[in-house]
Amino acid sequence: SKRKKIAIIGGDGIGPAVTREAKLLLEVYRDKAGLPIDLWELDLGADRFLRDGTTFPKEIQIAIQRECSAVLLGALGDPRVPGLEHARDILFGMRFGYDLYANIRPVKALSDKLVPLKGRGAKDVDLVVFRENTEGIYVGMGGQFKRGTPDEVAINEDVNTRKGVERIIRAAFEYARSHGRTRVTMADKSNAMRHAHELWLRVFHEVRAQYGDISSDHVYVDALCLYLIQDPSKFQVVVTNNLFGDIVTDLGAAFQGGLGMAASANVHASDPKRVALFEPVHGSAPPLAGKDIANPFAALLTVGMMLAHLGWPDEEKRIERWVTQAVDEGQCTVDVGGTLGTQAAAAWLRERVAAEL
Amino acid sequence: SKRKKIAIIGGDGIGPAVTREAKLLLEVYRDKAGLPIDLWELDLGADRFLRDGTTFPKEIQIAIQRECSAVLLGALGDPRVPGLEHARDILFGMRFGYDLYANIRPVKALSDKLVPLKGRGAKDVDLVVFRENTEGIYVGMGGQFKRGTPDEVAINEDVNTRKGVERIIRAAFEYARSHGRTRVTMADKSNAMRHAHELWLRVFHEVRAQYGDISSDHVYVDALCLYLIQDPSKFQVVVTNNLFGDIVTDLGAAFQGGLGMAASANVHASDPKRVALFEPVHGSAPPLAGKDIANPFAALLTVGMMLAHLGWPDEEKRIERWVTQAVDEGQCTVDVGGTLGTQAAAAWLRERVAAEL
Ligand SMILES: CC(C)[C@H](C(=O)O)[C@@H](O)C(=O)O
Ligand SMILES: CC(C)[C@H](C(=O)O)[C@@H](O)C(=O)O
Repeated sequence: SKRKKIAIIGGDGIGPAVTREAKLLLEVYRDKAGLPIDLWELDLGADRFLRDGTTFPKEIQIAIQRECSAVLLGALGDPRVPGLEHARDILFGMRFGYDLYANIRPVKALSDKLVPLKGRGAKDVDLVVFRENTEGIYVGMGGQFKRGTPDEVAINEDVNTRKGVERIIRAAFEYARSHGRTRVTMADKSNAMRHAHELWLRVFHEVRAQYGDISSDHVYVDALCLYLIQDPSKFQVVVTNNLFGDIVTDLGAAFQGGLGMAASANVHASDPKRVALFEPVHGSAPPLAGKDIANPFAALLTVGMMLAHLGWPDEEKRIERWVTQAVDEGQCTVDVGGTLGTQAAAAWLRERVAAEL
Repeated sequence: SKRKKIAIIGGDGIGPAVTREAKLLLEVYRDKAGLPIDLWELDLGADRFLRDGTTFPKEIQIAIQRECSAVLLGALGDPRVPGLEHARDILFGMRFGYDLYANIRPVKALSDKLVPLKGRGAKDVDLVVFRENTEGIYVGMGGQFKRGTPDEVAINEDVNTRKGVERIIRAAFEYARSHGRTRVTMADKSNAMRHAHELWLRVFHEVRAQYGDISSDHVYVDALCLYLIQDPSKFQVVVTNNLFGDIVTDLGAAFQGGLGMAASANVHASDPKRVALFEPVHGSAPPLAGKDIANPFAALLTVGMMLAHLGWPDEEKRIERWVTQAVDEGQCTVDVGGTLGTQAAAAWLRERVAAEL
């Protein structure tokens, strides 16, 4: 059978430390379970940028696209690079460059302990956000006029195409159908963004009509944030634009135990054979770097999402099960109620997984 | 002493019912306490629009601006007017037309019971959001190209001016200084909106340098949503743009007991003598209309904000105190744990206030 190549980019801040643990887990899968995967570590990030000015070379971008099934990214962002130039080149170079239009972010609590809402537990927090990942306010269109004067005007454009909106909404419905979910919620701000989100609302109504087996509703994003706190169990699959997906999934991370527990996939959903990008939702968290305190579970859960994507869905469930147990037994980092460091928490989990393979 | 005229617009859905209670409370203040206020009820909203096509006539807009100190608005939005044309004409006709650039939305929990976060109570939820109210994505700039075709592109522009950004940030710092707050947090998405929010970040740094007595920090809006759930007590004054202010204050309403408890003011902060607009944060909630079940407290708390603005800050505190007691004793509507209808809940509070005047 064909081997699958996985590019690994640790990046900045806590990125390399959590990615190291993710890689060790992947090595267990390769060496002990015999999964046909090859790992290819790439030296990209702030250090590299500061050393030789390299952000995301075209030949690397192309090689990944040609040869790899997946990329595992730790985190990008370093105070020594104020404009975040390298971070955007790499992150958007993959999200946009590989046309990974679906940023899939599960908002799933793995332990009752992690849910900060009164009267609610893990069973109430199990939704998946489909964030549009190639358009919206992230396209960078706009500019500054009369910069630095009292008359300055600064504009960013929120750009949405019929094609882009339709494919992400469709991806959410397809996901619901294939994952036993019965409801899709579309969130926009069509009462204020009458051009851009009138398109979203119109396309949503068209697409939902083709999925008679899935119920669906529409909600304004402001109300969604309120409803999520009042009762997250009401939501199963949420589809929204790039900016709102970013906001809603950070909010959702609060229900999962914080950013140390949130995983994500960036995929070209209609062609799963294309290279896909997997990254914890957290950033590089510079103040935590080099202290062995960052939570490695977001990165390990991201490995789970990657393995499911590559064809081994049971391994995602296995990793989730052990993360749950680790948190319940306190075999975890301080942010989720434990006492262990990054390496010890990851090692505990890795050994449990290895013993079962 | 000069009398102050207050325009009252009930609007749509539950708007008229809660505004009726707000007006009754204002009448107690006028008749029993002798506050020099005159009430001017206006027939605007969906009914009027459907009857004769009137949304927000220029002569009314001008008369309010000339004669009134404040407008009390219930809620706008009716399913019989799908495009919300009348709602936008009235709401934005005032927010934009009167240049009410500061939408001040307190996120304050009045009873421990209302706070849905484990281990937290009312003391942890006491912040004020300064939402920019005249620019951003709400300006309506943009359009649709090749509408209805597979090639359609739909754009909304997020427009920010130096003047607009500076005055709202300054308003937040001034408010902090005059209200005994020691910290201002600015929220943007400058890591993605590099034109528009680079301006926000730059102006924030300039303005903060002029307020050495107030500490301040910057946070990305996605992280803000997470941090608010993790620990709302960390925030005192949050200043942000129009869209993020809308989102963050609905999120904040969840900490206050829902939209039935959230009040707001729209003011031209640098000239408090200009007419100001006061409205509960909630919408018209058509399914609740005509059933005597809507929570009137958001509207009554909005009366409190209005009275404070007009020069009677003690009355705001009095109303808050009785709302707290009403909730603690269950003398309130179902959404906040009581059994009363709209009218009975408002009457209970009104009688308590009246007895003290
Ligand atoms: C770093 C930033 C540009 C990024 C985003 O907004 O997409 C991050 O918040 C994320 O969610 O991956
Ligand atoms: C009705 C809608 C346009 C409005 C807004 O987004 O400003 C509402 O959500 C609000 O917060 O007042």
